[in-house]
Order: sequence, then structure tokens, then C-alpha cells
Amino acid sequence: MEKNSPIWTLGELAAIFGGVLEGDPEALIERPVPAGDADPLGLTFAESERYFERADSVPVGAILVTESMPKGRSSVIRVAHPRRAFGKFLGMCARSLPLDDGIHPTAVISSEAWIDPTAQIGAFAVVEAGVRIGAGAKIYAHAYVGENCDLGESVTIYPHAVLYRDVTVGARSVIHAHAVVGADGFGFVWNGTQQQRVPQAGTVQIGEDVEVGALTAIDRATAGATRIDSGVKIDNLVQVGHNVSIGKHTVIAALVGVSGSCKIGSRVVVAGQTALSDHVTVGDDITLAGRTGVTSDLTEPGPYLGYPARPFREATRIMAATGKLPDFVRRLRRLEQAIEVKDITEDQS
Amino acid sequence: MEKNSPIWTLGELAAIFGGVLEGDPEALIERPVPAGDADPLGLTFAESERYFERADSVPVGAILVTESMPKGRSSVIRVAHPRRAFGKFLGMCARSLPLDDGIHPTAVISSEAWIDPTAQIGAFAVVEAGVRIGAGAKIYAHAYVGENCDLGESVTIYPHAVLYRDVTVGARSVIHAHAVVGADGFGFVWNGTQQQRVPQAGTVQIGEDVEVGALTAIDRATAGATRIDSGVKIDNLVQVGHNVSIGKHTVIAALVGVSGSCKIGSRVVVAGQTALSDHVTVGDDITLAGRTGVTSDLTEPGPYLGYPARPFREATRIMAATGKLPDFVRRLRRLEQAIEVKDITEDQS
Amino acid sequence: MEKNSPIWTLGELAAIFGGVLEGDPEALIERPVPAGDADPLGLTFAESERYFERADSVPVGAILVTESMPKGRSSVIRVAHPRRAFGKFLGMCARSLPLDDGIHPTAVISSEAWIDPTAQIGAFAVVEAGVRIGAGAKIYAHAYVGENCDLGESVTIYPHAVLYRDVTVGARSVIHAHAVVGADGFGFVWNGTQQQRVPQAGTVQIGEDVEVGALTAIDRATAGATRIDSGVKIDNLVQVGHNVSIGKHTVIAALVGVSGSCKIGSRVVVAGQTALSDHVTVGDDITLAGRTGVTSDLTEPGPYLGYPARPFREATRIMAATGKLPDFVRRLRRLEQAIEVKDITEDQS
Repeated sequence: MEKNSPIWTLGELAAIFGGVLEGDPEALIERPVPAGDADPLGLTFAESERYFERADSVPVGAILVTESMPKGRSSVIRVAHPRRAFGKFLGMCARSLPLDDGIHPTAVISSEAWIDPTAQIGAFAVVEAGVRIGAGAKIYAHAYVGENCDLGESVTIYPHAVLYRDVTVGARSVIHAHAVVGADGFGFVWNGTQQQRVPQAGTVQIGEDVEVGALTAIDRATAGATRIDSGVKIDNLVQVGHNVSIGKHTVIAALVGVSGSCKIGSRVVVAGQTALSDHVTVGDDITLAGRTGVTSDLTEPGPYLGYPARPFREATRIMAATGKLPDFVRRLRRLEQAIEVKDITEDQS
Repeated sequence: MEKNSPIWTLGELAAIFGGVLEGDPEALIERPVPAGDADPLGLTFAESERYFERADSVPVGAILVTESMPKGRSSVIRVAHPRRAFGKFLGMCARSLPLDDGIHPTAVISSEAWIDPTAQIGAFAVVEAGVRIGAGAKIYAHAYVGENCDLGESVTIYPHAVLYRDVTVGARSVIHAHAVVGADGFGFVWNGTQQQRVPQAGTVQIGEDVEVGALTAIDRATAGATRIDSGVKIDNLVQVGHNVSIGKHTVIAALVGVSGSCKIGSRVVVAGQTALSDHVTVGDDITLAGRTGVTSDLTEPGPYLGYPARPFREATRIMAATGKLPDFVRRLRRLEQAIEVKDITEDQS
Repeated sequence: MEKNSPIWTLGELAAIFGGVLEGDPEALIERPVPAGDADPLGLTFAESERYFERADSVPVGAILVTESMPKGRSSVIRVAHPRRAFGKFLGMCARSLPLDDGIHPTAVISSEAWIDPTAQIGAFAVVEAGVRIGAGAKIYAHAYVGENCDLGESVTIYPHAVLYRDVTVGARSVIHAHAVVGADGFGFVWNGTQQQRVPQAGTVQIGEDVEVGALTAIDRATAGATRIDSGVKIDNLVQVGHNVSIGKHTVIAALVGVSGSCKIGSRVVVAGQTALSDHVTVGDDITLAGRTGVTSDLTEPGPYLGYPARPFREATRIMAATGKLPDFVRRLRRLEQAIEVKDITEDQS
């Protein structure tokens, strides 16, 4: 089975990276590998001697190294910035999913949708009335694009992503497989006999260069819009509630829960499993460490940790002290005994 | 591009809400917006002066206010209950996804399925043998309805929801996109050489007026049924294990994990990221605060918090004391020094 | 509506289990039920008198019991190992989703895919170029199998599962509905003006007899492969980051987050909502209790708990002490008063 992956010679790669080859210029390289993976067709990199030793300890096609790295057994390409060259090679090797030009004959496209002729649409995709799809957009197989959605140019909608109605996605944004954008926000009121749905009449607006991970949910607003600003990157399995707004270039890791009406600022970093109570504001340039629980507004930039969230140093001091609690209990008991003994002694004296 | 959304004049809306308009009766309103959103076609509401100030600080079509609210710059409609009128307007504006009458020609329907003639089925839906679909049900695009599933009247199955075989869904219940109902429960036994699957031969029974969020999993029982009682509302990205039972009108927020064989009572509220160990019982009218970890039965109604779960007040006292731990450590050290100094003094004396 | 489920008489079942029937040999049994479920067509089991009482307290078709169990009201089948017999009955009753032989006419299969003639492929499945599908594999409706994927014999891909390109799945492995295997790892670098994607050029390699739960994400590697070794069982809604490796027979429960480049050993048990920071190693035969947070390497086999993770006993001691914190604070205050009083007394003396 041909893997139709590109193949390079070491000589070609040395030229591409502007490096100096020590090895066979005709040897073939097929893919990037992490340091330590045995792969005679793999190219890896090492910036420190420690990493070089790991990479050089197994058969590997070649190692991108600094100009001063000592020699080992493997072929090397010496470059000024091995990590940067490796990143370039990653970009040469990463290939997107295939998608034929035009609209797949099985796709169901509303006659009232407007689709740029350069957009590509895959098998079994459904595009409803009032949708607008920009130039160069890629809508993969099984995607569902609901009524009145507006997708900017070069947007990518991966297989099985679902956009409910009225969702806006800015240019170059990427929605991964099984993401759900625009489902009803979770709003109910107890009417005395049952939980009654609050109608969710708003939308979701996603900016440019946003990435929405696989299996992530972004709920539509009750009124107005849930807003994901340009440059935001969201990982897999994240919940973004109704009427949330997330500022530019904020990064959110997996399994995070952002409750309804939260406001997250720009350049915020939210680590995995962190959660925000509803209506909480997190200011610009804040970092929330893993599994932080934010229950009230945070405004001061910097790192936070814990449940409830506290400035990182304070939180780590508390965590450290908590770990020593059994010892504190012993010390407390000793003190009590000492006092008691003295009390007795003094009583006797 | 026409958005085919309804449009009202302020005069029409004042009449609909039985309110008094202060503003141009011919001005147009297209949608509800939250207080503070600038939107000349938007209608918002304010019950307090603080909210009114926020709503009035930007251009907005009109504000629903109480009869006594002071005047501002914006047009207002004065009503007895602004929030209730706004809720009514939400209901007037929230529109479900479009779905043609009848069965879409691309849907694959078993000849052994029974489908009420008033049910609607979307593109690429798959309906297997032995399925029964009630009157007025809506099965959206790409939904998979497994063998012998039984869907009551006016059930909604959103795009891409998957029901494995033998799942029952009661009248008016809603299953959101990418929910998975009836996948195998997670049961394995180590047989000395590998983890061997315990066959999952049960089903899932979902009552009436239930809502299952996007990307939520409800596993089938090992034997018998996983049961979601009527009126239960489950948010996105929730895990409900095999043989769980959940009582009437219970509400479960996002990213909650309910382990196998748990019993959750009626009118329970489970906040986000909370988890229950397997075989745990949570009684009626209990509230589990965010990220609670329930490891043993809870029977007394009321709020709980913490891991392990404790009555809310006790848990908050512990959380508060934990936050002061570094201070306690200092005080402990001071006491130790005081005692030691005295010991030395007394020894010397 | 015929449910096309098999039906047995009690006489047949007694013969199948090699047991002794006390009851009507012509009575019918249709399905397994848990002890305590009222179901005249149900078969349950009881190994202890306590469980027997629960099972016998409601009408049930029959109860599998030990040879010495006292008599009750229900029919019983006496066998040496009731649990084992019940497990056998579960296997007799658990039925997989239906799937016609061959390739469904609506499936879109690349002419450059190689599919074993005994494989079955459901409606609306998409199989891209370069894919290889082994003998007896089942690819259900709406599955997406990306370019160059390699699926071993008897693999099961449930409805709507998505495999991005280059994913390998070993023999007999099962991928549940809405799982996403091979989406881009979450790698970005801040380039001074925005978060720039690190191209994800690697793959995912899944071994034999692996189970991947519904709505679980396993990201492709940046370079090389994310590796799930043979016999691993992963529950629903789990996040497995890029370049993770997971050893043989490890079991991972729901809502767990495994960050990028983690190494998890063999026979590890990871309970629900646990999380691992990136680049962390967890050695063989370790158990991580519910919601453990692993922030540094763990090598010693055994159970761990807490955030940060500690040996289980140590962690439970800390949790117990934390629960008594308000009491400790009172004791600390009492000591301070005692010392102070003494200080005053001594000063006066």
C-alpha cells in the first residue's frame, strides 16, 4: 500500500534548512520523530547534549543539531536553530484530510445557501438555507451547517462537526470533529411543577483564527451572542456555556468548564479541568493552573491555582501546608500534652 | 441574505406585553439582547436601576422596565413584570432547526420500523428495524436510531445524536447533537491475562420531558435498565454510567460523572464537574455544589460540597480554614517556641 | 412489534447452566435483570442471603443461586457459581447493533481503499484512499475512516466514530460512537502576535483488544505516534493528548485528562476525573483513585490519591485531617490562650 507521503533525501533537507550534512546525502527521510524513537526513515532534533544522547541511542535517519554539538553515531544536519528547522519539517509533513474540489454529489445543500465556488464540501454534509460559506472554506464529510450560519473564508469544518443555526465563524477558524456549536444553553426555571426551559434565542459568534477542539461544546446565548474572540484556541472536551465571552488569543485546555455568562479576558491561559462558576469575570493576562475552580472575579494579571482560586504562590503554600497536616496534628497534640503536664506539675507544686 | 427572522414594531410589542410604550411605536425590534449589548434592533429588560443604567448606557431598541423605573435615553416599554415579558419575547424569537415534513429521501429507514406519519426525519438519518417513532417526533440529519428503540410523541433527536439499540425515550424529550445513549457500560473483569468485557445486555429508559445535552453519554445497563426519570435535565459532556437511576426533575450540569449503579433521587441539583463513586445513593432534594466528590450515600436533603462531600456549611468552614493553614503553621511554631523557651527557663530555674 | 430477542424456558436454562431447577420448566425467560427488579421474564442471581432476599422480594422469572441457598418464593436454578452462570447469560443476551453483510450502497468508499470481502460497512460511512480494513471488521453507519488508516481484523467502529488520517487500530479493538481518534494535538507557540499552531505530523497507533469509549478523544502525535497498547480499556469522555503512550491492559475511567507526552505504564487503573500534567510518567501497576491530580512522576506500584498525587494512605490521612481543621483551629486557639494566661500569671508572680 503506497502511503503517498512525501520523501526527501538528507541532501535535499540539508539544503532546505541551510544546514551542513554529516552523513549520506542520498539517505531517505520520510517523517519527523521524537528524540528516542527508533526509525531509520525519521528525522528528529536535539538542542542539548542530553537530548542528543537520547536521540542518538537508537537508529534514526538523522538528527538536526546545533553547529557545536559533539559527534555521535547518527547522521546529523547542523543548523543554527534545530528546533526551528524541525518545526519547519513538521509543517512540510503535516497533511490535512483529503477533500475533493467542489461539492460532493451526496451533500445536501439548500438552494437558499450561498457557497463560494472555491469552497469544498464533503460527502453527506448538510448545509441549510441562508448559510453563507466563504472562499476556500473546507466543509468535511457529515458536517452539519445549520440555517443562517455564516462561515468566513478558509474556514475548516472537520468531519461530523455540528453548527446549529445562526452561528458565525470568522476567517481561517477551524472546528474539529464532533464539536457542537450553538446548542441550547442550559437554562431552566422551576415553575412549581417542573423545570421549564428558558428559550435560547441568541447565537454564537466565533472570530478569526479560532480553533475549537474535538468534542467541544459552545452553547448559543439566551439573548445576544456567546462570543469567542479572534485567535482563541480551545482544546477537546471543553464546555462553554451560554452568553460567555472569551477575549483575544486566550487558550483553553481540555475538560474545562466555563459556566454561563462568564467573561474571560484576552491572552488568558486556562489549564485542564479548570472550571468557572457562572457570571464570573477573569481579567486579561491571567493564567489558571490545572483544575483551578474560579468562584469569584479575578482581575489582577498573573497565575492562579486552587478551589477557590488564589494567587499561585499563596495556593502552593496552602497545598504544601495541607500535605503536612498529619504532622501538624502530632505537633498540636504534643503541645497540648506539654501544657497539660505543666498544668498538672504546677497544680502539684 | 434574508435572515427570515420575524420583526416587530415597538407598538406591536407593547400591545403583546400589555405595556405602556415611551418611544416611537414604528421603531423595529428584531431580537432579544442582554442588558449592555449595543443593538438598535434589540430588546432587553431591567428590573433594577443598576441594570437599567447598564442597558441604557448603549444604543438599544428598547428596554422592558417596571412601571416606576426612572426615565433614561432609551425607549422603554413599562410592564408589571419585565423579566416575564422578556421571557415571553425569548420564546417568540427562539427558532428550532428547520426540518422538512415527512422522511428525507436520503434517510435509510428499515422496512421493519414503524414511523408515525406526522414524524419528520432528516437527511442521512438511519432508523433500524423494530424502531417505533411517535407522532410529531423530529429526527434530525445524521441521527442514528438503533434497533428496537422506542421514541414517544414529539421527541426531538438533534443532528448526529446516536441511540444504540433498545433505548426508550418518552414524550417531548430532547436529545441534543452528539449525545450517545446506550453505548456499552464500562464493565471489565481481569481474567488473569486480560481485561475481559462483561457483556452489557441491558437498556436505557428515558422518561418524558427529559433533556440530554450535547456530547453527553448515557450507558446501557449490564442487565435491566439505566433509568432517567421524567423531567430530568442533563447538560453537555456528562457521563452517566450503567445501571444508574436518576429521579424526577433532577438537574445535572456539565462535565459531571455519575459512576455505575448510582441512584440519584428526585429534584436533586448536581453542579458542574461533580462526580459520584459507583453504587452511591444521593437522596431527594439534595444539591451538590460544583466539583463535589460523593464517595458514600447522602440521605439528608440540603446542599453539599467538597471531596468527600460534606454538608455545605461544614465544607465551607473547612475550605476557609484550609485557606488559613500557612497562618496556623506560624502560630503553631510560635507556641512551640514559647513552650520550649519556658522549658529551658524552668530547667534552669 | 416483535423484539426479535431470544427466549428460553427455565428447563432449557437449567440445562445450559448445568443446574438444578426448582420451578416450572416451561416458564419463559427473556432477559437478565439486576436483583430487585420486578420482571416476570427476568433472570437474576444471588450469591448471599442478603442479595437473595432483595431478588426474592419482587416477582421475578427465576434466580440463579448457590446449592445451599434457603428456599424463597421465586423459582430458582441451583448452580455451583451463580455469578458465573449469570455472566454467561449476559453473554447470551447482549446483542450488537445490526449490520448487513458487505458494503452498504450509500457508503462512500475510495477506489484506493482495500477492504477485506468479509468486512461489513454501514450506511453513509466514508472510507478514504489508502485505507486497509481487515477480515470481519464492522464499520457502522456514519463512521469516517481517514486516509491511510489501517484497521485490523474484527475491528468494530461504532456509528459516527471519526478516525482522522494515518490511524492504526489493532485486531478486535472497538471504537465507540463519537470517539475521535487522530485530531490535531493541542500545540501552539506564541509568536509575538498570536498563538501559532505547531503542525501535528504524527499518528495514533492503537493495539489489539483495545476499547475506546464513546465521545473520547485521542490526539495524533506532533511527530511519531500517540500509542495505546494492546488490551487498554478507555471509558467515555476521556482526553488523551498528543504523544501519550499507554501500556498494556491499563484501564481509564470517564472524564480523565491525560496531557501531552505522558507515559502511563501497564496494568494501571485510572479512576474517573483524574488528570495528568504533561510529560508525566506513571509506572506499571499503579492505581490512581478518583480525581487524582498527577503533577510529577510516580514509579512505585500501588494506589495514589489527591492533588498532588500521594500514596493512598498518606492522602487519606491528609484528607481526614483536613476534615478536622476547624477543630484544630479551636484547639490552637485554646493553647494560645493557655500560654498567654500562663505568661500573664508568670509575669505577675
